[in-house]
Formats: sequence, structure tokens, C-alpha cells
Amino acid sequence: MVQPLFVSSEAMDWTALALQFERVRACTQKLAAPLSAEDACVQSMPDASPAKWHLAHTSWFFETFVLAAHQQGHQVFDASYRMLFNSYYQQVGARHPRAQRGLLSRPSLAQIMTYRAVVDEQMLALMAAMKERKPATQQAVAQLITLGLQHEQQHQELLLTDIKHLLSCHPLWPAYAADSPAETDSGPAHADLTWQPVEAGIYRIGYGDGDFAFDNEMPRHSVYVQTAQIASRPVNNGEFLRFVLDGGYRQPQWWLAEGWDWCQAQQLSHPCYWRDAEGHAGDGGWQEFSLYGVRALHALRPVCHISYFEADAYARWAGARLPTEMEWEVAMGLHEWPVSRPGLHPEASAGCQGSGIGQVWEWTQSSYAAYPGFRVAEGAVGEYNGKFMVNQYVLRGGSCLTPAGHARLTYRNFFPATARWQMTGLRLARDV
Amino acid sequence: MVQPLFVSSEAMDWTALALQFERVRACTQKLAAPLSAEDACVQSMPDASPAKWHLAHTSWFFETFVLAAHQQGHQVFDASYRMLFNSYYQQVGARHPRAQRGLLSRPSLAQIMTYRAVVDEQMLALMAAMKERKPATQQAVAQLITLGLQHEQQHQELLLTDIKHLLSCHPLWPAYAADSPAETDSGPAHADLTWQPVEAGIYRIGYGDGDFAFDNEMPRHSVYVQTAQIASRPVNNGEFLRFVLDGGYRQPQWWLAEGWDWCQAQQLSHPCYWRDAEGHAGDGGWQEFSLYGVRALHALRPVCHISYFEADAYARWAGARLPTEMEWEVAMGLHEWPVSRPGLHPEASAGCQGSGIGQVWEWTQSSYAAYPGFRVAEGAVGEYNGKFMVNQYVLRGGSCLTPAGHARLTYRNFFPATARWQMTGLRLARDV
Amino acid sequence: MVQPLFVSSEAMDWTALALQFERVRACTQKLAAPLSAEDACVQSMPDASPAKWHLAHTSWFFETFVLAAHQQGHQVFDASYRMLFNSYYQQVGARHPRAQRGLLSRPSLAQIMTYRAVVDEQMLALMAAMKERKPATQQAVAQLITLGLQHEQQHQELLLTDIKHLLSCHPLWPAYAADSPAETDSGPAHADLTWQPVEAGIYRIGYGDGDFAFDNEMPRHSVYVQTAQIASRPVNNGEFLRFVLDGGYRQPQWWLAEGWDWCQAQQLSHPCYWRDAEGHAGDGGWQEFSLYGVRALHALRPVCHISYFEADAYARWAGARLPTEMEWEVAMGLHEWPVSRPGLHPEASAGCQGSGIGQVWEWTQSSYAAYPGFRVAEGAVGEYNGKFMVNQYVLRGGSCLTPAGHARLTYRNFFPATARWQMTGLRLARDV
Amino acid sequence: MVQPLFVSSEAMDWTALALQFERVRACTQKLAAPLSAEDACVQSMPDASPAKWHLAHTSWFFETFVLAAHQQGHQVFDASYRMLFNSYYQQVGARHPRAQRGLLSRPSLAQIMTYRAVVDEQMLALMAAMKERKPATQQAVAQLITLGLQHEQQHQELLLTDIKHLLSCHPLWPAYAADSPAETDSGPAHADLTWQPVEAGIYRIGYGDGDFAFDNEMPRHSVYVQTAQIASRPVNNGEFLRFVLDGGYRQPQWWLAEGWDWCQAQQLSHPCYWRDAEGHAGDGGWQEFSLYGVRALHALRPVCHISYFEADAYARWAGARLPTEMEWEVAMGLHEWPVSRPGLHPEASAGCQGSGIGQVWEWTQSSYAAYPGFRVAEGAVGEYNGKFMVNQYVLRGGSCLTPAGHARLTYRNFFPATARWQMTGLRLARDV
Repeated sequence: MVQPLFVSSEAMDWTALALQFERVRACTQKLAAPLSAEDACVQSMPDASPAKWHLAHTSWFFETFVLAAHQQGHQVFDASYRMLFNSYYQQVGARHPRAQRGLLSRPSLAQIMTYRAVVDEQMLALMAAMKERKPATQQAVAQLITLGLQHEQQHQELLLTDIKHLLSCHPLWPAYAADSPAETDSGPAHADLTWQPVEAGIYRIGYGDGDFAFDNEMPRHSVYVQTAQIASRPVNNGEFLRFVLDGGYRQPQWWLAEGWDWCQAQQLSHPCYWRDAEGHAGDGGWQEFSLYGVRALHALRPVCHISYFEADAYARWAGARLPTEMEWEVAMGLHEWPVSRPGLHPEASAGCQGSGIGQVWEWTQSSYAAYPGFRVAEGAVGEYNGKFMVNQYVLRGGSCLTPAGHARLTYRNFFPATARWQMTGLRLARDV
Repeated sequence: MVQPLFVSSEAMDWTALALQFERVRACTQKLAAPLSAEDACVQSMPDASPAKWHLAHTSWFFETFVLAAHQQGHQVFDASYRMLFNSYYQQVGARHPRAQRGLLSRPSLAQIMTYRAVVDEQMLALMAAMKERKPATQQAVAQLITLGLQHEQQHQELLLTDIKHLLSCHPLWPAYAADSPAETDSGPAHADLTWQPVEAGIYRIGYGDGDFAFDNEMPRHSVYVQTAQIASRPVNNGEFLRFVLDGGYRQPQWWLAEGWDWCQAQQLSHPCYWRDAEGHAGDGGWQEFSLYGVRALHALRPVCHISYFEADAYARWAGARLPTEMEWEVAMGLHEWPVSRPGLHPEASAGCQGSGIGQVWEWTQSSYAAYPGFRVAEGAVGEYNGKFMVNQYVLRGGSCLTPAGHARLTYRNFFPATARWQMTGLRLARDV
Repeated sequence: MVQPLFVSSEAMDWTALALQFERVRACTQKLAAPLSAEDACVQSMPDASPAKWHLAHTSWFFETFVLAAHQQGHQVFDASYRMLFNSYYQQVGARHPRAQRGLLSRPSLAQIMTYRAVVDEQMLALMAAMKERKPATQQAVAQLITLGLQHEQQHQELLLTDIKHLLSCHPLWPAYAADSPAETDSGPAHADLTWQPVEAGIYRIGYGDGDFAFDNEMPRHSVYVQTAQIASRPVNNGEFLRFVLDGGYRQPQWWLAEGWDWCQAQQLSHPCYWRDAEGHAGDGGWQEFSLYGVRALHALRPVCHISYFEADAYARWAGARLPTEMEWEVAMGLHEWPVSRPGLHPEASAGCQGSGIGQVWEWTQSSYAAYPGFRVAEGAVGEYNGKFMVNQYVLRGGSCLTPAGHARLTYRNFFPATARWQMTGLRLARDV
Repeated sequence: MVQPLFVSSEAMDWTALALQFERVRACTQKLAAPLSAEDACVQSMPDASPAKWHLAHTSWFFETFVLAAHQQGHQVFDASYRMLFNSYYQQVGARHPRAQRGLLSRPSLAQIMTYRAVVDEQMLALMAAMKERKPATQQAVAQLITLGLQHEQQHQELLLTDIKHLLSCHPLWPAYAADSPAETDSGPAHADLTWQPVEAGIYRIGYGDGDFAFDNEMPRHSVYVQTAQIASRPVNNGEFLRFVLDGGYRQPQWWLAEGWDWCQAQQLSHPCYWRDAEGHAGDGGWQEFSLYGVRALHALRPVCHISYFEADAYARWAGARLPTEMEWEVAMGLHEWPVSRPGLHPEASAGCQGSGIGQVWEWTQSSYAAYPGFRVAEGAVGEYNGKFMVNQYVLRGGSCLTPAGHARLTYRNFFPATARWQMTGLRLARDV
């Protein structure tokens, strides 16, 4: 799955790692707290998983890769879980089919919560006893735990996007969280988009050193980037609405051929979770469904829940294009990385120094591919990023749903060109 | 939906009806008692509904057709339920799509139980006050309530077949009910199949008089039936296993052309819920999934969970055929109708006077069609049987899952030729 | 396939049979004459076959069932044809998949015409020499040839409906035959629909004696028919247009539930091959595609190319119903059977004594099922009618595309409830 | 479609261009010569077009973009062709749906041949008169004609791959060309694969100057390439067979996740057009279908008709990877470009100086994307390459089916990762 860099010549700080473990695990449960047993059980489409499954699978990860391997006399919590909550690790064995995760009414949410508690208890006991083990073991276990926590953070975001999709399937569009935060956005500065230069030349991209990165961010390597310009912030709802009202969804010239066919077949006319409450396709009356429920569409918030095809079509209509992930990494490297202000919906005022990073994942035009010299990790945990490197496009920057501290400049997210249920937007680039 | 015959010139016995109401409603809840909120929420296929939906829809029926029409100052429990829990009554208005019932994580099971309690309370209050109303109103309301109770009994059986299908989708095949009854079957008499004559002539079939019948059982009318013979009991597992082991699922000559194509496409090799635990297609080692969990296949129990296509192919292999529903009604009319002994799985020893009626629904070769002179009821409740009279086949007799007292000689159940998740078996007939 | 009754105690008249053979075979080729090699090769949908395939398959029938069995020293024309042109005779061996008949660019149309000539020559030689054979052989061969000729006549009609469908897929709607006959219809009498009584009682239906019948018309048997009325002629275009303009395709109350879902999914708004040339859904401007090309919709011609679902919905809208096939046979038995006036499109003035029989096949409400005591023929030719007796509905009467002399009172045609590319219409019935 | 560089300050040599026009057009007709009207009409799958359509569409290109725009008083040959033979030029107007090209039995092959002759005659007359026109017009027309000829050459290869697919659908696997050339391959040198170094550094790739290139090869630009090695020739059948026999199609570890799912769903076990004639999955008895008919699988011929997924899985199994298109262009730039020896099937001995270029298209791991600064041409001809730049992978080098002189070092072909009916193989690369 990943290639953690958690390497230290000094003695491991097991107390700190245990604290981080408790924090991440508690956060997952806090996200699930508003959900009933039924909310947590239903699967709304094959791409989305039930919240209960996320809760179990993240625990399965620790049990399978840490406890089963490194806890002496480990007692399996339930032998059937090995198969039920395996996602796609072929080397671990059989798996329950992804599209049928929603058929698992059993085990219940309550049983999964017990499972989490037992795993947590055993993990903390293991960590408390790690100081006695050999340094090599300590390092291997610490790497696996770090990996497991990063993995769990990824599932925290998925849990939210998946429950959002489920609630959107309900004809009443119920809210996940009742209280929407006060809107603090709308400073005029945010409407002013400026173009920031990217100078041609050789750059180094990819992960160098630090605490942790996934294997797909490595190795750090040289690329040649051409002269270009990149926008100072993501495209916002007001801008995207002009594309909608201008007939952008009815004009094939803006679209990739495959995107146009898909858009026609799906009968799309606006981003996912938008609706025209007045039904006359005019300027007013547009609403969007959020985890806070239905709200008026705010012009200055970044547009979100658009596919690669829509992002690309918008860019062409706007006389621009999507950036490559290399351009993006080079240009955004000039900014200080934002101290995330996670929330349940993108805000207009958020982001680092006005760059708007971190509110929506930004589609790049780069197909998800291996960096030169890419190597997967040994064993089953190596089955993560590499095997998805086809027909997917890279997104950069993180979103408001991404846990604080999880994303970074070199982070590579990826989804198929039709994915809309993730918190996805775009930032424009152009040649000069 | 139906055309109830609950007509009486005497004063209505509202106390008796209220008692029956309480009994039927309580029975539904008893069936749901072993289910968790998650069990009750999931939809395992488009043809099956979540248990929660059955619980709500049967209450919706009373609220929509009785309370909303006849309770003074009726307060709607929740306005959205009118749409969420409408099955297919076009005249009542919009409906939530059938295949998406499983996406309704809300309302919760607990809320539906509250809904049931409120409807029950209002219904009992209404009945208590009915004596004061005009006779015509009394009669209309009594008919609707009777209809609603019959309707609820139909959903009791569906609730069980649907939950059975859901549990069968779980890789562990969990049981709905822990304790299987002691096997009381296996008397040698049951293995001896005899042929009972049907004499050629004009017969009257269909519902004549009595307390209640669905509209599709009427009017009673004359038919000409040819000389034939009909088996003294349904086909049992041992007999059907011989068909399986003889290669019946691999030989096109026994099958209707459409059935053969379907059987090949589905890669069927035995009845639904059977499995060959030893995997060598031999005589021993066969098991079947039941609501009691997995059990060894008992040779003398009636075969169940077979489609029309399988029933028809078996009959041809056995040198016989399926009876018409007219033959069936004429022949079974010679038996005393069984005092049902409902259970969760067919038993070998059950049934009236050895006829075996009432353990499994018996496929007939008759396409489901209107009786001559058939009329649907006025209004939305008329949208029940008539509109399904195409591409469905009639089943007769009732099953162990049918509520006690619900079936009768003239009762016409119907399903498409591919349906397997119902408690369906067959009885042979032959020409002479 | 069929159970021919060609039985004679006298000496066979082989000269007459040979003459009939030549006539039927020549007729098939005349129907194919307007077709280019390309027209004859393309398959427009899985249900339709290329004309070339019809030409080959009907010859294959004679080669496989007559020549290979009864010609001494028979040399197979081409060994691959046994598989390529087998329709669905499992006992004959492997078959080329039906939906892939259009992929057979080879053999060419010219080769198939040679095949026909060779088969014809050998068949005529065989018949010329039959007088020397044993009477039992003579009778068996004469029966097979008769069957083959009836089979070929069925394919003559299919060839026309299939080529019509193909041409309808071309955006220019090209004509099969250039010259449309002068319209001889429109006598006022045809617009006057009257209701003819059917008296309740026991009737004998099915084929009794005569030259030939298919096995599904037998045995002749008793049925009890209720009192009813049946229309004096089929529904015409003008009447059906009123249903269309009245919103019949948008109102679920007229439709069987399965028919409504299908109609919505297919987005149907009028019969197959109709179009509203002016596009405003008004009274004028309607056209229909025929084998003569596009023509104005003539109000007095029988409506055709409608599915069972549309026929049934129209009948309900018109306050009537479809007849059963028993009613139809009883009522039409009072008419003299028409001397067919085949053509390429139904005419308003045609039919026997104003009954309109023979212009369009008439949907009945009867599911296609075995008559009591039905037996299929021995051997591969028995694989014809019986194995389709599920999910199909019976049509009666014959159409303008049916070869002269092919249909009769007891003839049972059958198609699924969604079939529209056949020459299908309806006649109303009603209870009294 | 393309951005031709046919730019000359000197006077145009219209005689030479006319000669080239005649040569290319005649070549297309020579390829179609072995086909019957039926062979040329059938469409075997949505991705493939009928030969007749290729013949018409390439002529439509000249009529639409050259004659209609630049021939005075141009008379349209047939107004319906504008729509029937438009491939995907949205700006030209309506199009006949791609998947329904095979339904066009009309116009006939003979009519299309007449169409070709008329277009040729008019084109030659136009070229003969061009000297009188203004230089800017001359240049524009010459560019369009050059583009049209390159376009026609692309369709020549497609015509062959599409007819090969059609013939492969016939159960007898008929040959397109009767006479297979004598095998001239099998020198031992070809079996010895060596690894050629690629040095890290900045390179210029893409089309610089010359007679012609497609827009997707431009602009020429700098890229940074890492140190690597690339194989001296493509993978051959013998090598790929070892992957097959080693269970490569049954082991998920070699496959991209999407490729594995697809491979399982399609039940693939070997390259397209291979078959194991002896059926025991052993070393001998393997055959492949070619345009020469069925032949024994020759170990030293390049493997062909494999998807990107199979190429990628093979490379991983072999401990290598696919090259990027940048690596490929850099490494192959060291070779002299082969004087093509086109044929109907790859040969073992062919290719430039042992590099094997030009026998099979070679999958690269590069997603098909715009080069930095990419611009599409103005007008409808600009609708060619750009709109397909998603979910496709780049192939390099040309195949034995590519017309002589058509491919070049910078040429970029592209297909989806599942495409197998093209003449596709692979060359290995590896990191060092």
C-alpha cells in the first residue's frame, strides 16, 4: 500500500505514537457518531462503502498487518472478518465482493464498535510493550502503525463522501450535521483571480524526506516543466454557474469525446448535488446539497463534486486548461502549506495565503502513473497504489474533508474521470 | 387491490374485527422481532423489500385508505411517508422507486415502530367509534380493514422470504431463527406417491361465497376440464435430487427454450439455497439453507425454491407435466382444506390428509389471467391484481410461511417464471 | 416442429406435391429478388434474421430432414451448413448463435442461391423416384416435405417483417417495393364497427381433420366459453390515433404494470413505424413506414405493428378487452375463411365478408400454452412449438404478409408481449 | 484532425501530389478487392467499421473538406452521405451512430465504388486546375489533400483490422488472403534480446520539420528522461506463450486491478486470435488466426493482438515494465527508421537493423495526452486528436498493416487499454 518513511536512528517514542493512534482512532468514531445503525449499513453505489465497513476495515488493517504478525499469542477477534473486511489485498486471501458490502447486515454496528475497542486495547498494549523488542522489530512495527493511521485518515474522508452520497439518494436530502457554520467568506479579494507564472526549467518533484509519504510520491526525481501560468485559486461556484447557464453542458465543442458521450448518457446539466429549485435554469434559485443539508449555492465557494470531464470542459470553455501535476507541484511549492481548517463543506475564505489550497481536491490533466524508478513495498501492504495506475487522473491539494495534517505538497490522490462523489474541484492553468 | 366480500346484513361485530386487527398486526411485529435495525434495512435485490419497508407499507395502507378517508380530523403522521411507502398505487401519487427501497436508511426502524403504534392506536379508536356511523360507512370501512389485514398477511410471508434472501447473500449463511423444530416427518406413507383421477366435465371454479376473497378469484364460473391424474403430494427433495444427479440441468430436452437459455446464463445446477457441501455432485453431502440456518437436505421434505422453469423441466423429465390451475382446484377440492401448521420450513409430514397442501406453493402451468367477467375494484385499491396479469404463472395451495387461515382452495398466487426466492415447489399431473 | 396430418390411404400424388414444392420455393426467391447481397446479409436485431439466413435455413430443413435421411448416397452440400443454418434443433447438434447470424458474411448470397438450386434439384429427383418406395416411407417423406413447405411459408412472412425492420433502421426509410397499389379501401361500411355475439356453452376447438396442421393446434378438444361479444373488424389507424392523441401512452391506468414500465423505458408514444412528420402531435401529418416506403397514415387501414401491451392498453382505454383465443376461434368460425389477398401492407377493404380477417395478426389475451393432451412429434422435428410455450401470447387470423392458403381458423401464431416488428393488430371483445 | 506541415515557399508540385493521390486511393481499393459486398457491409462490433464505410468515409473527407469548399459549382454526389459517412465531426453536423454503421445495407458497395470514382475524377480535375489559383489557396488545398491522404492511410490499416475481426467471428475462421508468404524468419539473432541504454538527460521530442505530421506530435519540446534500458526487439510469441503456460492469466499479482477484473469478466486466457487446437494447454498445438487464415503459432514472430493490460501484466511477470513514449522516442531515435515491408501479419525477420520496429504497434505506459503548447487546427478538421486525450494509451512504431511511409519516429497512435483487435504488441523496458 505505502512505503512509510518513518525511520529514526534514535529510540522510538512509543508514547507519542500511542497518543497519535488514540487521536486518529477517536476521530473516526466521532465522524460515525451522527449515524444510526441503518445509515452505517447501507451501500448507495458500488464505488461507495458503508460507514460500518470503513469502521471495520480500518481495524482489520491493524489486526491483520500488526497484531496478527507481532502480538504474541494473538487471538483472532472473529475469523470471518479476515475475508469480510479485506478490501483488495489479494495476498491476504479471499474477499467479500466490493459491490456487495451493503448486504452485510451482520455483524452489527454495535459489534463493529466492540471490535474497534478490542483492537484499540490490544494495539495500545502492544505499543506499551514495544520498548522491550529488538530495534528492527520496533522500526517495522512503527512503520506499519504509521501506515495504518494514514490509511485510516484516508478512510475518514471516504466515510464522509460515501455517507454524503447515501443521504443524497434519499428524496428528502437529509443533513448529516445539523448546524452549518456561519459563513465567514465573501471578501472581495477572493473573487479576483490572478495568474501566477511557472518558469520553464528542470525541477525536482516528489517526496524527499520527512515523516511519511505514500509510495506513489516517490522517488523524488527531475522533470522538465514548460513556461505556464496557474490560477491563484480554484474556480468558484459563480464562475461555474456561468458555464452552466451559457449552455456548457449542451455544447460538444468543450468536451472530450468520451466525456461528451458520458455526459449525454447520464443526462447531466450541472455539478453533482446541485439543483435548480425554481426549475427555470436562471441565475437565481440554485441550491446545493451538503453535509449540512440543502443550502443556497454560494457564488464564492469553490465549485465541488465535478468529474474530470466537467473540469476539463469548463477549462476549455474558459480559454484555459487543467494544470499537469508537475506544474501544480512546482507552482504550489511557492506557497506555504496551509494549516488545514477542515470542515464539512468548502468555504470561500479558506486556504493558505489566498491560494485556496485544501478546500477541494484539484483535478490535474495528468494520468495517474508511476514515477520513474517507482517500487512497491514488499508483501501484501505493497498492494496499494501501483495496481490502480491506469485510467485514473491525479488530484492534488486535499479538501475540507481531508483530516488535518494528512495532505502535503507531494500528495497524489486519484480517481476515474467520471468520479463526482468526491470533494473535487479545479484550478485553471494556461500556456503563455 | 382486492374485492372484499365482507358483507353482512347484520350489525357489524366491531369488537371481533378489532381483535383480529390486533392479532394480525402483532404477528407482523413478532416476525420482525429477531431482526436488527440493519437486517431490517437492507434490500438484497430489486424484487425483495427491506423488512422495515414491509412494516411501514402495511401501516401506510391503513393510514392512506382507512384513516385519511374515515377518521375525522386525521393528522398525517409524516407527510413524506405517503410517497416513501407507496408500493405501486399510481392513483395515490408519486412513489419511491422499488429498487431503491434499500437506500432509505431513514426513517429508522425505531421510527417505523412508533408509526405502527400510532396507526394501531388510531385504528382501534376508529373501530371503537364505528358503531355510531351509518351502516354503509360501517360496511365500507369494515371491508377496507379486512382488505388491509389480508394485505398485511401477504406481506408477512414476503417479509420472511425477503429476509431469507438477504441472509442467503451473507457468506456465512446466518440463521433467522436459532432453533429448528424436531423432525417429525419420514413416515413411509409420504414417500408413496399415488395418482388421483380427475374426471372430464364441466366444473365451477373460483370464489363463491364466504368471508373474503381477492378480486382475482372471482367471478365463480364454469370451465371444462379434461380427464387427467394428479399426484397425491408435492415432489420431494429426494425425487428432485435424482433429476439433479441425472444431469437434468445440463440437458436441454427437458426445458422450455427460454428456461434453458436462462438456466445457462445463470449457470444453475440445483434449486436455490441448495449446496453440495462435498463438491463432488454425489448423492450425499447436500445441504440447504433455511430460516433455521444450514441443514442437511432431507429427502422427504417437499422440494422448494424452484422456478417455474425448473418445475416444468422436472415434470417433463419425470414423464409428467404441471397441472393447470383448473385441474388443481378441481382435484384439491376433494380434500378437506388443511388446518395450517405454519413454520419456517416445509416439513415432510405436514398437510391435510396426506395431500401435502400448504407446505409449498405449487406451480401450475396456467398463466395468470383474468377470470371471465373479472372486474377490478373502484379507486386506488383496485390497482392490485389486474395489472399484473401478464408473464406470470399461477401458484396454488399456500406454504408453511403463509399465515394460518390466509390461503384457501381458490387462492391464486402468481410470480414470474424465473422467481426462486419464494417458497415454491410443484405437484405432478399427467394425461391418461 | 409440427405434426402433419398429411395422411392418405390412397396412392400419393407425387406430381402434385412436386408442383406445390416448386411453387413455394419459387415464391421465397421472388420475395428475395428485390434485395441486394447487402440487404440480405445484415441482421438488424437479435430477433430478426438476415434474408440470406432464411433462404439457407429453409433449404437446410429439406436437406437435413428429407435428403440426408431418405436420399440414397446423399452428398452433403457443405458440411458447415449443418451448424450454420440450424435454428434451434438441439437434437441436430451445434448451432450458430441466433444473435450472430448477421456476422456470417460468408457464404455469400450467390452461394446460398446455388445451394437452393441444388437442394431443389435433388428434392425433385427424390420425389420423382418415390413411387418405387414402400408406402410407409412414401407417407413419412410426404409428411416431412409438407412440413418443410409449411415451415418455408412461415419464413416467407418472417423474411418480409425482418427486412422491413432492417430498412426501418436506415435513416432514409427506403422502400422494399417501389410501387404502392392503388388504395381501394375507404368504403364507409368498414368504419362501422358492430358487435357480434358469442353464446355461452361448450365448443370444440383445435384442428380436426384436413390436409395439414401444426402440432400446437391439436388435439381438438372441448372448452367452455362464456357469453361475450366480439368486434366485426380489427381496430383501425384512425381509432388508434385517438388513443395516441388522448395521451394513452402517458397514462398508466390503461397499462399492465410490466407494459407500463417497458413503455416508459422504451419511451414509446405511438405504434412502431409511425412518425409525426409535423412534430406537433396533432391530428394531421402522421405517416407510417411500410414496405412501400413512407406513406400518409390512412385512418381506415387496420392498425399494425403494435405490441401485446399496446393492444391491451388500447382495449382498456376503449372500454373493452382482448378476446381469448377460444372466443376468437368460436366467433370467427361463423365466418367463411377468407381467400387471402396477400400484399405488403394491410388494406382497409380487405378481408372476408367484412370481418377483416387476414390483414393483421390479432393479439388475443391467451398465453400460448399446450392444448390438453398435446404431444410433440418424435425426433428433432418435434422441437418446434412445445418449447416456446411460456411468456408468449397467441395471435390469430394471419396477415397480408402470410402466404395465400397458409393460415386457417385454428392456426396459432405466438410472440412475446413486447414484439412489434410483426404485422400485429387487434380486435376488441367485451363482456355482456 | 491534423495540422499538416506541407508548407513550401516554392511553387506547388501539383503533378506529384496528384500522383500520390492516385496511388493512395488505388491502394485502398486494392485492399477491398478480396471482399464481397457482404464482407464489406457487416459490422462485427461497435469499435469496428464495415469496409464499405471506410471506403465511403475517406471519400467523404475529400468531398466535404476539399471539393465542397474549393471546387467551383460543386454538385454534391448524394446529400444523405454528408450525414451517413461523417465519423465524429460535430461541426459538420449530424452523424449516423457509430454502432449502427453495419445497418446501412444501402448504399451498396457498387454505389460506393462509383462515389469513389466520381470523387477521384473531380479531385484530379481540381488539382489539374490549381496552378491558376492564388498561392494561399494552393497551400491551403494542398494541406487539406495531404491531410486527406494521411487520413485515408490510417483507414487502410483500420479496414484490415476490422475485416480481420469480422472474419474471426465466423466459426470457420476464413482467410482474407489465400496465399501466405514463405516464412523467411527464424534467424537465431532474433531470439537474442539485448538491452540498450537510455542515458538520463534533457531531450527534444515531437515533430520538428519535414513533410507532414499530425497535430498530436507537436510542438517539439524538451523532456527530462531518466536512465533506463530498452529491449532490442519486441516480445515474441514464444516468450509470451511461456507467460500463458506459467499461469499468467490466472495470477492477479501481475495485473493492474482494473485489468484483472476485466480479464476475469472476459474470461481471457491468451492473446486474441490464439487458440489451443489440442485443448490441453501444453506447449504445442497453438494456432493463431491471421489474415492468411489459421496457422501454427510461430515462436519468433512478435506477439500481437494483446491489450495494454496484457502487455503490462506480461512486462511485470518478466521483471520489466513498459517504456514511456519519451523513452521509446529517445531510444528508437538512435536507429535508422525502417523502410517498411508491409504485409498482412508480422514476420520474425522484419524490421530495421534488428530493432523490429514496424511489425507491431508497441504499447507504451504513457497515457495519451497533449504535448505542452498543443493547439488544434481551426475548423472542423481540428476535431481529430485532441478530443480523444483521455483513457487511452500511446502506441509507437507502426505495424505490418501500416501503409509504407506512413509512420515515423514521432508518430503517436492511441487506443483504450482493452483494445485487442489492432496489431498491437510490446517492447520491454527496465530501470537500472
